Amino acid sequence: MDTLDQLEAVIAARRTAAPDSSYTSSLYARGLPVIARKLGEEGVEAAVALLSGSDEELVGEAADILFHLLVALQARGLSLADVRAELARREGTSGLVEKASRT
Amino acid sequence: MDTLDQLEAVIAARRTAAPDSSYTSSLYARGLPVIARKLGEEGVEAAVALLSGSDEELVGEAADILFHLLVALQARGLSLADVRAELARREGTSGLVEKASRT
Amino acid sequence: MDTLDQLEAVIAARRTAAPDSSYTSSLYARGLPVIARKLGEEGVEAAVALLSGSDEELVGEAADILFHLLVALQARGLSLADVRAELARREGTSGLVEKASRT
Amino acid sequence: MDTLDQLEAVIAARRTAAPDSSYTSSLYARGLPVIARKLGEEGVEAAVALLSGSDEELVGEAADILFHLLVALQARGLSLADVRAELARREGTSGLVEKASRT
Repeated sequence: MDTLDQLEAVIAARRTAAPDSSYTSSLYARGLPVIARKLGEEGVEAAVALLSGSDEELVGEAADILFHLLVALQARGLSLADVRAELARREGTSGLVEKASRT
Repeated sequence: MDTLDQLEAVIAARRTAAPDSSYTSSLYARGLPVIARKLGEEGVEAAVALLSGSDEELVGEAADILFHLLVALQARGLSLADVRAELARREGTSGLVEKASRT
Repeated sequence: MDTLDQLEAVIAARRTAAPDSSYTSSLYARGLPVIARKLGEEGVEAAVALLSGSDEELVGEAADILFHLLVALQARGLSLADVRAELARREGTSGLVEKASRT
Repeated sequence: MDTLDQLEAVIAARRTAAPDSSYTSSLYARGLPVIARKLGEEGVEAAVALLSGSDEELVGEAADILFHLLVALQARGLSLADVRAELARREGTSGLVEKASRT
């Protein structure tokens, strides 16, 4: 099982835990604005790490983004599968565009 | 093959294309500050979509974050595998912590 | 009259103009999520300019933040005067804290 | 004296204080990447407060942005006067554009 799918399952399992027992459940207990703020802040931190941080820091920020992105998607009843489908759809379109431009 | 791994391979293939032929290669040609700005902006857009957008918009922003995150990692010679390893490491630690707290 | 107060007056005057005649009125016509997105993105752009841009770029991004911040405040019926009052309140508190620590 | 100019003077005075005695001096001691991260994060927090926070929260976030923006400018030897000049220049241009469009 892919690590990201495992992480998604772990988030789903923790979502309903007591808020003081896990960071994940505390995010859901605090609500969408807190999750939105964290997601936006992780984007900023990854951007700064790309320009000024070590490889280890950039990988850590990337992991933080993915975690909070999966939390945000689940908060709205969405999943990584929806994002994979969207990426595949775009790639398909892009592939067609490239093919068309070659003929 | 996982969609995200496919996307990573597509980005690697496009990286060396002519900058005016693909958005991906133009990002690399413009350099790290532009990639950092895009990554940070996608985090903001996903945060706003979580609070005010449709499901379709949130999924679209999530796809944008993942694309730009993979571009940023490759710009530094890093990959999704590094992020998966970091997430697995954290989950392992977290699992141990949970086990310890049960005994 | 201070430049920022002038800018605030200009924004107020343009707010009710036709959306296609000014960037300011188009922001209000498009609504809070678009204003929020712009404000957050300007924060990211200023952060990147601080690390990688010229002085001119950083000043330009700072001007962009101030403009969008004033637009955001007015969208909620707030003003720069409210922010000045908050900063003065904090400084007052901070001054008291410093005084106390000296005795 | 304007509150923002006062704040700028306070920041300049604290900049050279011992890092453990003030938040301002600790920011300078930690360096540009930390200041950049804070500035970007405040932009995200203001965006979220605009969509989901109280008036008091939005004003607080606006004050946070202004504080960190002044810190960032001073870190590069720039000042609020530079930003006011840029805003006045834009307004002047914009005024001319409007005048031209009326004739």
